[in-house]
Amino acid sequence: MPQKPAAPLSRSTYPHFLRIPTRWMDNDVYGHVNNVVYYSYFDTVINDWLIHQGGLDIRGGDTIGITPETYCQFRASFSFPDIIEAGLAVGRLGRSSVTYLIGLFKEGEAEAAAVGHFVHVFVDRRTMRPGEAMPPGIRACLEPLVIDWPGSA
Amino acid sequence: MPQKPAAPLSRSTYPHFLRIPTRWMDNDVYGHVNNVVYYSYFDTVINDWLIHQGGLDIRGGDTIGITPETYCQFRASFSFPDIIEAGLAVGRLGRSSVTYLIGLFKEGEAEAAAVGHFVHVFVDRRTMRPGEAMPPGIRACLEPLVIDWPGSA
Amino acid sequence: MPQKPAAPLSRSTYPHFLRIPTRWMDNDVYGHVNNVVYYSYFDTVINDWLIHQGGLDIRGGDTIGITPETYCQFRASFSFPDIIEAGLAVGRLGRSSVTYLIGLFKEGEAEAAAVGHFVHVFVDRRTMRPGEAMPPGIRACLEPLVIDWPGSA
Amino acid sequence: MPQKPAAPLSRSTYPHFLRIPTRWMDNDVYGHVNNVVYYSYFDTVINDWLIHQGGLDIRGGDTIGITPETYCQFRASFSFPDIIEAGLAVGRLGRSSVTYLIGLFKEGEAEAAAVGHFVHVFVDRRTMRPGEAMPPGIRACLEPLVIDWPGSA
Repeated sequence: MPQKPAAPLSRSTYPHFLRIPTRWMDNDVYGHVNNVVYYSYFDTVINDWLIHQGGLDIRGGDTIGITPETYCQFRASFSFPDIIEAGLAVGRLGRSSVTYLIGLFKEGEAEAAAVGHFVHVFVDRRTMRPGEAMPPGIRACLEPLVIDWPGSA
Repeated sequence: MPQKPAAPLSRSTYPHFLRIPTRWMDNDVYGHVNNVVYYSYFDTVINDWLIHQGGLDIRGGDTIGITPETYCQFRASFSFPDIIEAGLAVGRLGRSSVTYLIGLFKEGEAEAAAVGHFVHVFVDRRTMRPGEAMPPGIRACLEPLVIDWPGSA
Repeated sequence: MPQKPAAPLSRSTYPHFLRIPTRWMDNDVYGHVNNVVYYSYFDTVINDWLIHQGGLDIRGGDTIGITPETYCQFRASFSFPDIIEAGLAVGRLGRSSVTYLIGLFKEGEAEAAAVGHFVHVFVDRRTMRPGEAMPPGIRACLEPLVIDWPGSA
Repeated sequence: MPQKPAAPLSRSTYPHFLRIPTRWMDNDVYGHVNNVVYYSYFDTVINDWLIHQGGLDIRGGDTIGITPETYCQFRASFSFPDIIEAGLAVGRLGRSSVTYLIGLFKEGEAEAAAVGHFVHVFVDRRTMRPGEAMPPGIRACLEPLVIDWPGSA
């Protein structure tokens, strides 16, 4: 059992939020959102930010984000038709990589029902290798999300 | 190629709308929302209505909706991070069954990008057989959605 | 309620089968495979055939298949960990389009638990318009699947 | 970047394998299986084992498995129509909880393309609290999967 949360539990820590309504098919046979689906909330809040704020062009751009690891701790359950408020922060911003911190909250609740992290390495679409640095637009949209979080060494 | 739309193309025909944001993983390899996912928008707008307006209890209720058929015509594509406005109407309201009409619209557009129908038969959870009639709360929430649509014989 | 099956009910009618194991998350809150997921079985058996037998190159090829309509009738349910045997036939093979017929069978059963159709129009990836004709490799892999089916006018 | 693999990289370490074919919609816009979907392979290999070998009754049983955390490291990509061979082991078997180790392999390859862990706590379906111990049938099916793995403290 995890002793330490993977990302901040407190709503006030997250600089950005996206509302993500659950879908009927998110529910599993036990009547709760399946654990797999939480990760689709993670990459939705992340990519929505990168596209809208960082100019990421997922179809034609030279740079794509690949994912070396993801992690989630589940503390309380969601059920359709809950609306999820997904908090996004950056715990570590490297030269060509970033570690996002994500907290998933029930509408209006102060403490996260799930927390996790998600790593992106930005690579050239053709070579699939990291470039010298991440594109300036991407970096610029991530900097305002950086928070001080000891777990992101 | 379909000659006749499966449900109304015009936004003004639908009595109810639900906003459904796309998710990153809805996109397929061609950069558009995969055709399968449209049906998850269908059952989300339908079940959201039944739960919120009709008192459907998906975990403990005596009545569940089973689905004998669904159908969708795809006219224009969506891509993440589009927000979909899902229009819902009822084309045929029977004793224990209902035929929903669904139109999926890009934000603010007048003509549907996809239209389809979805049939529910309400059955007893234990016997899996239709009862004498659908529960009064369900029927009451469906009646305001009924429109005149010739294809729903 | 459908009077006429959307595709053949009998296993012996289908020229090709693909085994598709269900997944844990295919199940919905009622303990059965969600209706949406049936369509993912449809496009899996179809695209698997096109890639393996027809040389479809989904990442770099000039031609892609777009989907103007899909339809499914649900006759009996599946539950994880069922293994589905997906039967594939072609009901109509046009100049640039094809109507597939699909039957989903429980392992070893003679009659389909679900039947449906799925239409592909092959278009140029850049213009998104149908070419003069579908690529010869695609056509060649579809011809052996053609069956006589009155519903596919 | 992870220094240490989350689970064994070597195929020969895993006591059990399940073949899981990819599906068309598993692919994302970059032409690879989306990172989210890997977790559905995890819970498929796990629950398939629990149902077939441990007698887990997901619809009517008194005991259900809840998931406090999952983790995955992505080392190489899959693409539809790849077939995945999912290796399953147990790194830690507690009184009412288990930590699974999972390795996802391309057909016939010796080294895993992805590795991760997945924790189950077995709880009473009504109280949602862990019982005195996990059901004997569950424990009996997990014991043969236990391996020595230093990361599973």
